[in-house]
Amino acid sequence: MILIAERINGMFLDVKQAIADKNKKVIQDLAKNQTEAGASYLDVNVGTAAADQEGTIQWLVETIQETCSTPLCLDSQKPDVIAAGLKVINAENGVLLNSTPLNKKSDEEVFDKYVEMANQAGPKANIIALTMDKNGVPQDTDTRVAIAAEIVSKAMEKGFDTQRLFIDTIVLPVKVPNAQSQPGNILAAMDQIKYLSDPPPHMTIGLSNLSQGASERSLINRVFLAMAISRGLDSAIADVFDQALMNVVATSDLLMDKQIYSDSFLKVYSSANKG
Amino acid sequence: MILIAERINGMFLDVKQAIADKNKKVIQDLAKNQTEAGASYLDVNVGTAAADQEGTIQWLVETIQETCSTPLCLDSQKPDVIAAGLKVINAENGVLLNSTPLNKKSDEEVFDKYVEMANQAGPKANIIALTMDKNGVPQDTDTRVAIAAEIVSKAMEKGFDTQRLFIDTIVLPVKVPNAQSQPGNILAAMDQIKYLSDPPPHMTIGLSNLSQGASERSLINRVFLAMAISRGLDSAIADVFDQALMNVVATSDLLMDKQIYSDSFLKVYSSANKG
Repeated sequence: MILIAERINGMFLDVKQAIADKNKKVIQDLAKNQTEAGASYLDVNVGTAAADQEGTIQWLVETIQETCSTPLCLDSQKPDVIAAGLKVINAENGVLLNSTPLNKKSDEEVFDKYVEMANQAGPKANIIALTMDKNGVPQDTDTRVAIAAEIVSKAMEKGFDTQRLFIDTIVLPVKVPNAQSQPGNILAAMDQIKYLSDPPPHMTIGLSNLSQGASERSLINRVFLAMAISRGLDSAIADVFDQALMNVVATSDLLMDKQIYSDSFLKVYSSANKG
Repeated sequence: MILIAERINGMFLDVKQAIADKNKKVIQDLAKNQTEAGASYLDVNVGTAAADQEGTIQWLVETIQETCSTPLCLDSQKPDVIAAGLKVINAENGVLLNSTPLNKKSDEEVFDKYVEMANQAGPKANIIALTMDKNGVPQDTDTRVAIAAEIVSKAMEKGFDTQRLFIDTIVLPVKVPNAQSQPGNILAAMDQIKYLSDPPPHMTIGLSNLSQGASERSLINRVFLAMAISRGLDSAIADVFDQALMNVVATSDLLMDKQIYSDSFLKVYSSANKG
């Protein structure tokens, strides 16, 4: 499981404050602790913490890289912010560009732009592509799969290895009225997306969004993650500090025959994934 | 979710002792407490507790019925023991005959016999049929589905409503060497079994068997149950006293859009399912 740790995000108050104060220690501790907890990537999102988003993502990247070499996941809806981050990143460790829809209302070829940026950043630069197009986020299974198919097909046309694609099926909060059919639709979409290419594209989700504003957040995240891993989900942006969630990842891997059973399988998993 | 509570089974030492002592209180407390915890059926299995299996299952049924009217699930590999239980049961509450393979080495038409017994017991008598035939328990997905298809087809031929069938895909302990591919195969079989008839047969599993002898039993059971419910599993023989497991059932129902979200969804589920 490729876990993208979610905490270095300006939406969290401690990070917002650290950005305002240029307090490196808060950011570096989060980087080290999330790596220790099993993160494969560290998400880096300025959020609404600063007016100068480009300068801020560069400060965050440089601050993290001073202390650890865990690959980063540059998270912004603005390509210019991602591009700014890429200027200072050590892309040899790997990097994820998070994220692009297939296209936008303006018909701007935004996916193409991300492929170009990833290619410039080097062979270890990957892209999170959302099953979302100029009409917004689809509600049904078929449109999600159709957009994913178009993403995969565009990548192939451009000679961009489909294993460098992370298809994000966009999880909506289960608490939102009329959103309760979404989890089932997303699982059904995953069943099909994994067959879009051979080898398949990665699949990822912003897991915590599912339980946004809900009670029992960890429980809701855990149950859906188990369901999704059984459909082939191999990545998630998630709270790696949630030990119960990490135990579900280890157990799902066990049940999907990706880890051999031993009485200490939780410990074995956790040691194997420590940064 | 149709939960079949597993505790009244002579394999548990307290039940074994209660059977030996003809101690009604132990059995009746288990019946009441499992009902209170959310059981739809109470499994009744003599186990190896007594030589006189037929007399013992009758004593258990009568003892339980003195104190509660929760439907019973008569659990034995011997049709004569099930038949003995049926003689004293109040089948108007509903009853499950647990369980029959498609056929046996002897070519004995054992499934037909169960259909006959269920029909005699009345319209609320249902059958758990195992995806198992004279060759034993299949290891792969396709043979499981093929046996299930034959069970469904036999039921249809005999005019036995497929909604009275509970197809049990037989979960093996994940700890057993070479059994780790089984959970994935079973989930794939469930994906197909639910389309064998319209309306579909029920699907059930003996959940606790999955974690037999393993560490982290509840965690393993919970993760697999979430995966299986997302494939359409609508019943399980399980430990209803495991509150963490019951919370996963409630959350799975929420995510599969079978319960409306409210901040107190766990409590709502639990109240709705109390006997």
